[in-house]
Formats: sequence, structure tokens, C-alpha cells
Amino acid sequence: MESGSREVFAVTRRDGDARAGRLQTPHGPVKTPVFMPVGTAGSVKALGPDDLRKLGARIILGNTYHLYLRPGDELIARQGGIHRFCAWDRPILTDSGGFQAFSLSALSSFSEEGISFRSHLDGSRHLFTPEKALRIQQNLGSDIMMVLDECVPYGTPYAYTEKSVERTTRWAARTLAAFSPEGEKEKRPLLFAITQGGFFKDLRTRSVESLAGRPFDGFAVGGLSVGEGRQEMYELLAHTIPLLPEGKPRYLMGVGTPLDLVTGIGFGVDMFDCVLPTRNARNGTLFTSVGKISIKRREFAEDGGPLDPACPCYVCRTFSRAYLRHLFMNKEILALRLNSLHNLTYYRNLMDSARRAIREGTFAAFRARIAALYESISSVKRSI
Amino acid sequence: MESGSREVFAVTRRDGDARAGRLQTPHGPVKTPVFMPVGTAGSVKALGPDDLRKLGARIILGNTYHLYLRPGDELIARQGGIHRFCAWDRPILTDSGGFQAFSLSALSSFSEEGISFRSHLDGSRHLFTPEKALRIQQNLGSDIMMVLDECVPYGTPYAYTEKSVERTTRWAARTLAAFSPEGEKEKRPLLFAITQGGFFKDLRTRSVESLAGRPFDGFAVGGLSVGEGRQEMYELLAHTIPLLPEGKPRYLMGVGTPLDLVTGIGFGVDMFDCVLPTRNARNGTLFTSVGKISIKRREFAEDGGPLDPACPCYVCRTFSRAYLRHLFMNKEILALRLNSLHNLTYYRNLMDSARRAIREGTFAAFRARIAALYESISSVKRSI
Repeated sequence: MESGSREVFAVTRRDGDARAGRLQTPHGPVKTPVFMPVGTAGSVKALGPDDLRKLGARIILGNTYHLYLRPGDELIARQGGIHRFCAWDRPILTDSGGFQAFSLSALSSFSEEGISFRSHLDGSRHLFTPEKALRIQQNLGSDIMMVLDECVPYGTPYAYTEKSVERTTRWAARTLAAFSPEGEKEKRPLLFAITQGGFFKDLRTRSVESLAGRPFDGFAVGGLSVGEGRQEMYELLAHTIPLLPEGKPRYLMGVGTPLDLVTGIGFGVDMFDCVLPTRNARNGTLFTSVGKISIKRREFAEDGGPLDPACPCYVCRTFSRAYLRHLFMNKEILALRLNSLHNLTYYRNLMDSARRAIREGTFAAFRARIAALYESISSVKRSI
Repeated sequence: MESGSREVFAVTRRDGDARAGRLQTPHGPVKTPVFMPVGTAGSVKALGPDDLRKLGARIILGNTYHLYLRPGDELIARQGGIHRFCAWDRPILTDSGGFQAFSLSALSSFSEEGISFRSHLDGSRHLFTPEKALRIQQNLGSDIMMVLDECVPYGTPYAYTEKSVERTTRWAARTLAAFSPEGEKEKRPLLFAITQGGFFKDLRTRSVESLAGRPFDGFAVGGLSVGEGRQEMYELLAHTIPLLPEGKPRYLMGVGTPLDLVTGIGFGVDMFDCVLPTRNARNGTLFTSVGKISIKRREFAEDGGPLDPACPCYVCRTFSRAYLRHLFMNKEILALRLNSLHNLTYYRNLMDSARRAIREGTFAAFRARIAALYESISSVKRSI
């Protein structure tokens, strides 16, 4: 399981704690830091694989919970796997399904065995064990699989969080024991562990320490962005990220805003995913080089200029703010696609710029610039 | 206003009454017979101009009523016209707005002056006169403009239909009087009249005779596909189309199914528009070389083959029926785009095949083949 002669991940450049790297997957390499668009049920909402290629997405995420329930992981396996099914030939990471089983379904309960839950679609009963979550992801044919974990809600007391962290570690060990990747070494999928620990630094430490020595291909930080304040999240990240193994990719799950991303990179995070850019896009909130804007605003009604003059995407090269506003106000389906295309391009460019800054040794200045942008924007928002 | 040395329209080949031709517009030539996708409010629903180019759309239609209300024709004029606003540089035909003012809005009423109506969006009062409908379309920068007409509902008595036909002719004369195309002769927009007459052949004759001698660039048949049976529509078409001027383009408005299209072409129609292929697409009904299918059907759940092996479109080259069914059942936004892309490709190919058959002198056989397909499909549908 150890990478041995094959280098799954290499840090190619450091700038402070920030890293530029390269992750090898069965569907090719991924340059880091990277943001992964979320393709919940086998589709990044409103976009086709042609759009994703056009905007330069290097890797996307699929949700195990959703794909398991519909259309089913076994159906996808019979259809030749998730890549063929979705017509996406670049890497795909799948989460473990634990977070959605807990957050989306009624009557979910955790035991040593796994997570018992009812489908949010039809109320049917299901059980995710660590072994089953792994098998589902193997059926999907994921490039990067995540171990089943328990993500505790914000405010969970110490005693429960401690028990939960210990169980998550036992689940990780069970997953590892069940993991026997098929095929050639070069083509095997990767398996990442998820560290937890709620909002207690000593439990975060314990979680990392209990997992870091095991032969996982990468390590995620889970259980953040669940209702805590930004400062609290950043403090926990500052505490946790340096504890993770230096030579393995580090993935901050479900986070976040552009500011969160550059902050995370500054702490040494390599990978991110979040529904924010696509969900915001569908709500008309767009990221630009001068900050966040709502395309609904009246001032854009006759604005013939591009959404973001600094953006190279199809949307900014082709349409005016006036047209984008018109599409959105008129509830045109096309608005969802164009807005999503743009926001994901913004995120991709943000990651590319971060990588470039790391390689040039100017990451601190880059991070400060983005932070200033989003702080000034927040105060603009408050004044409206 | 007569075409003079400039040939607005040329019939390049005849096969029985069917014609292959070429229509010259300010945004380039259009080969006929042609089907025009409907871009109601400046967007063919769920598709971008990139998709429309990819599927080979030669001309699209915009609805004057919708664009007038939102974002407004004057705004579009200030933004450089509809082509620039929508980033579509091929021809655009706009309807007169009369049909929607009557069918979508509450409290519409017809007088000699025009159509008075309330906006379906906010209840505001508006008046479309023939002159105003023309001015709106000039503001939009349409390539082919339609005169304001009255489309009477199915079942309208003879006396009212007769009065209405006479008024529609007077409105056409007023439109012509107000029409003073700007710019060079080669670049001027075209103006089409709309013949009416309900379901009375003598009134259809009278409408055509009162309009055909005037210097319009083309002639439409309106007021069909409003609830009559297929046979009744075909009989009226067989009666009306031969009355229209030979050398001018003939446009059958708001029609229809693939069978309607090949039947219309057989009578000598050159142009069509209809929401059917895009609306059906959004409902999961897809046209294929073996007839209509509903992508929802359970039998497609594990069908790894292309939607239509005979179709060259992006969707059929890229995705399986299983994936398309999954997207649709999961209410993924992408389903709307892919289904629309496919159905409009089917319509474009149908028109291309019709044109080819006309050029090869085999149109009757082609029409019979399509008719048999849709008749056998209807009986399959009944047996389910």
C-alpha cells in the first residue's frame, strides 16, 4: 500500500507552509493546490463535461451517498464505471457518504457497525459500514476514495466527540483492511483517511496521530465549515494542518470561500471542494477580480461590459452583464449554466494564481491581496 | 421595397410542390426548408449560442411580446440590438407579438387601432398597434419582421373571422406604410405578412388575395395548430399554400411535429418554427431515427447505447441512454440542455434530409418514410 517506487504525491515547491504539488491518479495527474467542483449525482449542476473541460477542471467530486441511492453504484459498475457513465475521463474523487447519510436523511444513527439511515428520496432503510462505503466507491470506479467517517455537528460535547474520533479511527483501520486495490500498481485508486475531532484541539491532534502513521494515500480534514465562525475554523486549521504528514496530500473537505481557500493553502492544504461556487452561481452571486457581485442588481440592467474584464472564460468573452442579468431575472435555464461556468473558472484561476505565487515565492502577498479584496467586499455588503 | 436586382429569395430546386431555396437576410443566407428554434426571451431555452452553433441552427426566432416586456426593446436597442445582446450573429426572425398579447395576457382586446393587453408579468397596460409592433422589431434589430395580426381561436364563427381577416389586411397595409428600412439595400431587414382566415377556406383565400399583391418579402400562414385536428390542418394547408406567391418564402407559424414539417414541405412551405422540440426535450420526450421515445422509461435504466445511433450530435456521440435517463430522473439541469441539443439536432437533420431529397427528386418517398415512422410510433404509443 505504501507508494514505494511510485510517487503518488510530490510537493514540487514550497513557499512558507504553502505547497505546490502533483498528485498521481489512475486518470492522470492533478496539479495542486486544486479546487474540485462538486458533481453531486454524476453531474456538476448545470454543466456538461464539455463545459468542465473548457473551464479547465482537473478533477471533480462525486457524492457516494447520492450515487448509491440513484442510479446505484452497481448500475454504474455495470455501465463501465463513473467515468464512462458521466463521460468524464479526468480524475474523480468520491466522498464516503457519511456526511450526507447523517445530514440529509431522517433517523440516521451511528453504531460501531456503521451509519444506519433512511433514504431522503423514498424512506428506504440503508446501512453504510466502512467496508460498504469502500465497496460502493470501488463499484463507482473512483480515483480517490474516502474512508467512512463521522462528522459531528458544531457544538457537540467533548465526551461524544472523543468517542466519535476513536470510532472514526477504527473505521479507517477497517477500511484499510478491506482495501485490496485491483490491477497494476500504477492504476490503483487512492484511499484517503479523514481526520475529525470537532472543535477540540487535543482531539484533532489525537485523530491525526491515530491515522497519520497508517498507509493512506492522503489525509483529509473533515468536520469544518459546519456553523463555526471563520476565525475558529482558521485557528483549528493552523493547529491541525502542520500535524498532517508532510509528504501526503492534504484535503480540506467542504470548504469554501475564496478567502478560505487562500487561507487554507497558506496553512499547507492541497485540495478543496465546496458547492459554494456552483450554488452561488445558481443564486446569481458571481465572483470577479474585484470581488463578489449579485447579477440581479439594477445597476447591471444596461451594463454592456463583460462580467469580469479580467476573466478569460467563455461567459466573460461573449456576454454582457446586461444580458446575464436579463437571463437571471427571466429565470432562463441558460443563466444557471453561464453563471456556473464563470464561477468555476474564477475558482480555477484562483488556484492557478495561488500555484504560480507559490512557485514564485510570492504567496504571502497574493493571499493578502485576496484577503483584502474579500474583507472590503464584506464591508460593502454590510453597508447595503 | 420590391426586391428588384437583389434577390431576397430564390427557389433553387423543385420536387413536386416541395421547394429547396435560399433566403438572403442582413445576417447572411438561410437555406430552406428551415426550422427555426424558438428563443422566446432572447434565449433558446437551456441552450447557449455555442450549443446552437454546434447543432447547426441557421436562424432562430425571438418573441416580440416577451422581449418588449422584458428586458424591453429600447434597452436592447441601446445594447446594440438583439444579435449583440444575445451573442448570436446569424439571422433572427421576430414574430409580431400579437399571438402572445392575445394568448398570454389577461383582458386583451382588439380594436381597429391595435391590441390592448395587460402584461402577464405585472399587469401593466400596453397597446400594440401595427406601427408599434414594427417599431419594436426595428428596435430589436430583427432580420425578418412580422406584421401585427390577429390569430382567432379554433371555433371562431365566420362573421368574426371575416371581420378579423379584413382588419389584419388593413394592419398589414399600415405596417407596410410605416416600413422604411434604413441602411443599404443589401442590409435591410425583411418584412413578412401573415395570412389568416380561421378554418374557412374562402376566408383563407380572401386573406391571401388581399395580401399577396403587396410588396412583402415573404408570406406566413398563421392561425393553425390552435386545437384543430391534424387532417383539418393539412386540408387547409393544401388549400392555402398554392395560393401564396411562388417566388416568395412561405412560413408556416407555430407548427409542428416532424410529420407536420414534412407534410408542410410537401405542400410548398419553406420555413417553420415551433416550441415542440425544445418543450418536449424538457419533458424528456426525444425524437430519434426510429421515432419518439420517453427517456423516463424504465427500459433505458441500464441501456448503455446512444440515444440515437444514427444521430451525429454531441449528446449521441458522448452519453448513454442510461446516463440521460439518470439525469432526467434526478432533475439535473444538464438534462434540459442535452435533451434540447439532441431534439434540435434531430429537427435540423430532418430539414437537411428533406432538402437533400428535394434536390435528388426523392421527396415523396422521404415524406412517406417519415409519415410511416410517426404513424407506427403513434400506434406503439397507443398500445402502451
